[in-house]
Amino acid sequence: MNINREHLDDLALGTALLGTGGGGDPYLYKLALDAAIAEKGPVELVDPGDLDDDATIISTGGVGAPMIASEKLPNGMEGVWAIRKLEEFANMKADALIAAEIGGGNGLVPMLSALHMGLPVVDGDGMGRAYPETQMETFSIYGISATPMSAVDEFGNAAVITTNDSKTAERIVRQIGLSMGGHCMVGDHIMTGLDVKNYGIKNTASLSVELGKVVRQSAGLNQFLADSAPLLVNAGYGAPLNLFEGKVIDVRREMVGGYDVGEFVISSFDDKHQMTINVQNEYLIAIVDGQCIATVPDLICVIDRETLLPITSERLRYGLRIAVIGIPTPALYKSPEAMAVTDPRAFGFDIDYVEMVTK
Amino acid sequence: MNINREHLDDLALGTALLGTGGGGDPYLYKLALDAAIAEKGPVELVDPGDLDDDATIISTGGVGAPMIASEKLPNGMEGVWAIRKLEEFANMKADALIAAEIGGGNGLVPMLSALHMGLPVVDGDGMGRAYPETQMETFSIYGISATPMSAVDEFGNAAVITTNDSKTAERIVRQIGLSMGGHCMVGDHIMTGLDVKNYGIKNTASLSVELGKVVRQSAGLNQFLADSAPLLVNAGYGAPLNLFEGKVIDVRREMVGGYDVGEFVISSFDDKHQMTINVQNEYLIAIVDGQCIATVPDLICVIDRETLLPITSERLRYGLRIAVIGIPTPALYKSPEAMAVTDPRAFGFDIDYVEMVTK
Repeated sequence: MNINREHLDDLALGTALLGTGGGGDPYLYKLALDAAIAEKGPVELVDPGDLDDDATIISTGGVGAPMIASEKLPNGMEGVWAIRKLEEFANMKADALIAAEIGGGNGLVPMLSALHMGLPVVDGDGMGRAYPETQMETFSIYGISATPMSAVDEFGNAAVITTNDSKTAERIVRQIGLSMGGHCMVGDHIMTGLDVKNYGIKNTASLSVELGKVVRQSAGLNQFLADSAPLLVNAGYGAPLNLFEGKVIDVRREMVGGYDVGEFVISSFDDKHQMTINVQNEYLIAIVDGQCIATVPDLICVIDRETLLPITSERLRYGLRIAVIGIPTPALYKSPEAMAVTDPRAFGFDIDYVEMVTK
Repeated sequence: MNINREHLDDLALGTALLGTGGGGDPYLYKLALDAAIAEKGPVELVDPGDLDDDATIISTGGVGAPMIASEKLPNGMEGVWAIRKLEEFANMKADALIAAEIGGGNGLVPMLSALHMGLPVVDGDGMGRAYPETQMETFSIYGISATPMSAVDEFGNAAVITTNDSKTAERIVRQIGLSMGGHCMVGDHIMTGLDVKNYGIKNTASLSVELGKVVRQSAGLNQFLADSAPLLVNAGYGAPLNLFEGKVIDVRREMVGGYDVGEFVISSFDDKHQMTINVQNEYLIAIVDGQCIATVPDLICVIDRETLLPITSERLRYGLRIAVIGIPTPALYKSPEAMAVTDPRAFGFDIDYVEMVTK
């Protein structure tokens, strides 16, 4: 399929949902993409299965705290500059771009860059959601070097990183992002079409459009859960679970080390139960009345209880009436090597991964 | 002249003196250079006047907090990797290296790298002392781009920065240094022999050896001042002034944003006067009894009152009996464009530059 202007509202809703709170609010990139499509035509979305095995693909997205990404306006060309910088450094040309993470605004970033560069975008990504750190991308997990990695700001200042491992690249690019005002645009993971077929999370862009349509068209929470289930299962996720409903009664959020870090407390509408959600850009851990009921790498999504609109972590605030939806992660994140970098302990929590349960 | 093993003690004393507290303690690099010279022979020191006008010169040194540079041991090859990385990125080869700053350990860094690379080192540098930030190098001040700039750590992790101005490069490389554990080795300012002739501070390596010899051979403070004066004047500095003598009675020092930042208080031996010195890696401002008597860009040097040994800022401690020596800066730092980036206001102090006075 192609992404046209009429898809953008649904696309942004779907990526915000899959973002599990992170990846940045899609709003600004939706506006930029709308203007770019009006000028240059639709975004060509390529099914991963249609890629040449030896095609050259680059993953791309923004790095930084979502809170800042919403306030430090992009000029819209950072993504192009990041890809060009990487191409120049590595003496190659990209045949297509792919989202480092489909979640949030980062799901739209490669589309905007690809339009300006006359390139197609792969229908898929390296996370199937959003995660805060580079080494959590499937591409890194399954052995593709994250570097050389380019990072640029809205003035064209740039750095190209080469490291021995993805986690070190993450540490360096996070600091570069801080030096660029808290956010930078990145190109990384130079890989082949075959790599994307093997290690990409597939069809997550078109899934986002479909999920957004369900969000928009559902009469209520139950219909949303019922109608999104076959879409998610068909794409390799598990069926969504209703983990909790209630109102936000406490919000603690600060910017630490280039991330939004926080803890949110939600009280059930009858005030008998409380859920606590821990955040590092994304919603990571959900605990109800002292029992952990959902963790990374499964997706913990927060939506408005009435409108069903996804709520990103930097916009969660006191008094909102929400539902917390769990979506079991795709299989690529259930392997030991994936769990090692995306389970709760990889985020510093003294908690083991638990299969999601409803409470 | 060539730098041989028997020059190293004097060289390290001289660079520590010109470091005005910063540039890092030369001790570790003296040991590494001693071992390298024993294996590979002396360091070839080239007079700037003997450079071909179109020779390619790269400046190099460590970036970070001196406190960390003394504790995070180098493997000795970081400097070589930084130069190689820059050469590869910019598709050029260095004909010689030059110290970004002669002050402290950074005066020895290019010698170690050059020995491993079979290159000569220019007898001179880009500061004539040490300063904490890249844009304060004469090369940057007089229009040579600081970037592309490479930064590497002891594991070979690297980044190459390209920016629109030197101050932005400084901001980014400082954060990269933090992500590399607080210190990294840098190659920058790709320039010509003619650039070095026009904008370098000349003969500061051989000056350091001579100053070190004076430190070592002087019977006392007065002889040190008398014997170092002609050397300094001949090299374009002013004659040294005895600004203050006393004992250190207060030391406040912390690592902030990748720098050692602090304030030291020295009481005169008769306890009638106090000098306060403000530090950002280097000694920047000297105030006696509320009157500012010396500031950047002039050199404020601290030496042991009895042994005359220079004391770097990270080693200054309570109870030391010291003399504070002022050395008027070379002419390249008296221009408006140099003053704009190296006077007290450039460091955030609400103080104007004052010609040094003795109190």
